[in-house]
Amino acid sequence: MSLEDSLIEWVKERSGKAKLLVTGIGDDAAVIEPTEESQVIATDMLIEGVHFESNAEPERVGWKALARPISDLAAMAARPLYAMVAIALGREVGPPDKYFKRLYTGILQLANKFKMPIIGGDLTRSLSHTSICVTVIGESFDKAPVTRKGAKVTDKIFVTGELGGSILGHHLDFRPRVMEAIILNQKYRINSMIDISDGLARDLARVCDISGVGAVLYEDKIPVSQNAHQMSTRSLNSPLQHALYDGEDYELLLIVPDFEAESIMNHLPFGKPKLTEIGHIATRGLRLKRENGSMVDLAPAGWDSLTSPYE
Amino acid sequence: MSLEDSLIEWVKERSGKAKLLVTGIGDDAAVIEPTEESQVIATDMLIEGVHFESNAEPERVGWKALARPISDLAAMAARPLYAMVAIALGREVGPPDKYFKRLYTGILQLANKFKMPIIGGDLTRSLSHTSICVTVIGESFDKAPVTRKGAKVTDKIFVTGELGGSILGHHLDFRPRVMEAIILNQKYRINSMIDISDGLARDLARVCDISGVGAVLYEDKIPVSQNAHQMSTRSLNSPLQHALYDGEDYELLLIVPDFEAESIMNHLPFGKPKLTEIGHIATRGLRLKRENGSMVDLAPAGWDSLTSPYE
Repeated sequence: MSLEDSLIEWVKERSGKAKLLVTGIGDDAAVIEPTEESQVIATDMLIEGVHFESNAEPERVGWKALARPISDLAAMAARPLYAMVAIALGREVGPPDKYFKRLYTGILQLANKFKMPIIGGDLTRSLSHTSICVTVIGESFDKAPVTRKGAKVTDKIFVTGELGGSILGHHLDFRPRVMEAIILNQKYRINSMIDISDGLARDLARVCDISGVGAVLYEDKIPVSQNAHQMSTRSLNSPLQHALYDGEDYELLLIVPDFEAESIMNHLPFGKPKLTEIGHIATRGLRLKRENGSMVDLAPAGWDSLTSPYE
Repeated sequence: MSLEDSLIEWVKERSGKAKLLVTGIGDDAAVIEPTEESQVIATDMLIEGVHFESNAEPERVGWKALARPISDLAAMAARPLYAMVAIALGREVGPPDKYFKRLYTGILQLANKFKMPIIGGDLTRSLSHTSICVTVIGESFDKAPVTRKGAKVTDKIFVTGELGGSILGHHLDFRPRVMEAIILNQKYRINSMIDISDGLARDLARVCDISGVGAVLYEDKIPVSQNAHQMSTRSLNSPLQHALYDGEDYELLLIVPDFEAESIMNHLPFGKPKLTEIGHIATRGLRLKRENGSMVDLAPAGWDSLTSPYE
């Protein structure tokens, strides 16, 4: 048996079973039985040197590789069901079987939390760095998936958790907001939702662009994380700037009708992470209302996976 | 708009529409309506320097990136419906937008042949080489998907097309055998099928291992390609060795019951590519019957994506 086949066998023994899975790891493709729900699918590529440092623990890298596309499903209020995992092992990782198994240990830790079997994938090597591409398949849960489009003037803007400074470690260990998204979508009308992967300002700008609206954020409401404060001691930027522009928070940004906002704040649907109203939808532009009452324009900037400096 | 967003917009305008597609490119995830067929899913990673040379035309690289997972669906006799495309652009490709569009031109050429829309994906950059990960989603066509398992003693072994020497160019331009697989599966009973990606010997060994059987190939029947002959003038190996062990033919290897074999050969279901009976399933081992009647053991060797020398 080739090294490739023996590692695939190793995964197969650990990949979990699923009711509707007919054929999983070890054939040319996976086969799943149809269901009656809409299917929701996301794919994400994780590149050594861009999305994780070469010396990051492989278990944390594996966790992140799966957590990112799951966060995309959360942003649609979908429930993850299965994952396909493609891995290209770099040259610098030492014995490929050891690195591979550590990477997969992290993937399986998160997969087990969601009872998601790994149903297939690919394994190859790379001339230089390691890359991991994970595709997750999920389904809508009772209600239709929530798209980015649909924000309306006077809607309120909410965010889960705290923002900024993810590079200090949160970007490797974050927990995708699946349960929170499903609970919110079941209890309330949500007009638009996105997960914040490229920074609050850029991702809010995306929602506004596609919905044909603008937004105002309130400086005194934005939940600035401890990590954002810590980062600002090492940079020229304020903690608020880190919260607005740093990437990889993987928190949910929700746009809800005015009448729902009060109800959400009066009956918080979960204790943790916190849920904060941080602004409202306006006719155009992206602006920040300062604590002193003045309004300043915000650049729709943030992390750009093609042009931002390497981490 | 960021460069990433503008390239995603460029793809969106060209990615094709699909009846059951609710939400495609430009949201956090794709949403598709359920159908009543079993779903068949494959994912494949293409790495610069391993699966294509750095100077290969990007259009051919794009074609191959999509053709490989489609070939996996063909091996299950499934019909491709949608694709998710994740791309990490390397540093050496010149202007990223130019390389990206050329790569996508090749992807879309093949996608259009199968009327498959691209429903989502990911775009990032890489510190060094380019990598492309494509996930394809298809469905069974009338009959259940054909797995690798199920070969039985006395079954006959068939192969489409000609084998060997793919590295001379066929590996970038091959046409996945989707129609052939569907026609064969509709008209005949097929006990087992695989696409030959790592060489006839290795992939036949995989079918035998999982089915708990062995096989005998006939030297005088194996369809040796012109490219295999050409490669043998530059190597120490015979044309037959190239046909047995070279990777990336992407032809179908079929195992059919004895009673179907005669029927298939008497009523060839398609004119091109040719379909050849090349051996039979035995109780154990992997052997070659030489033209002189002697039997020799075959190593279950071939291309190993983790340990074979770089192209």
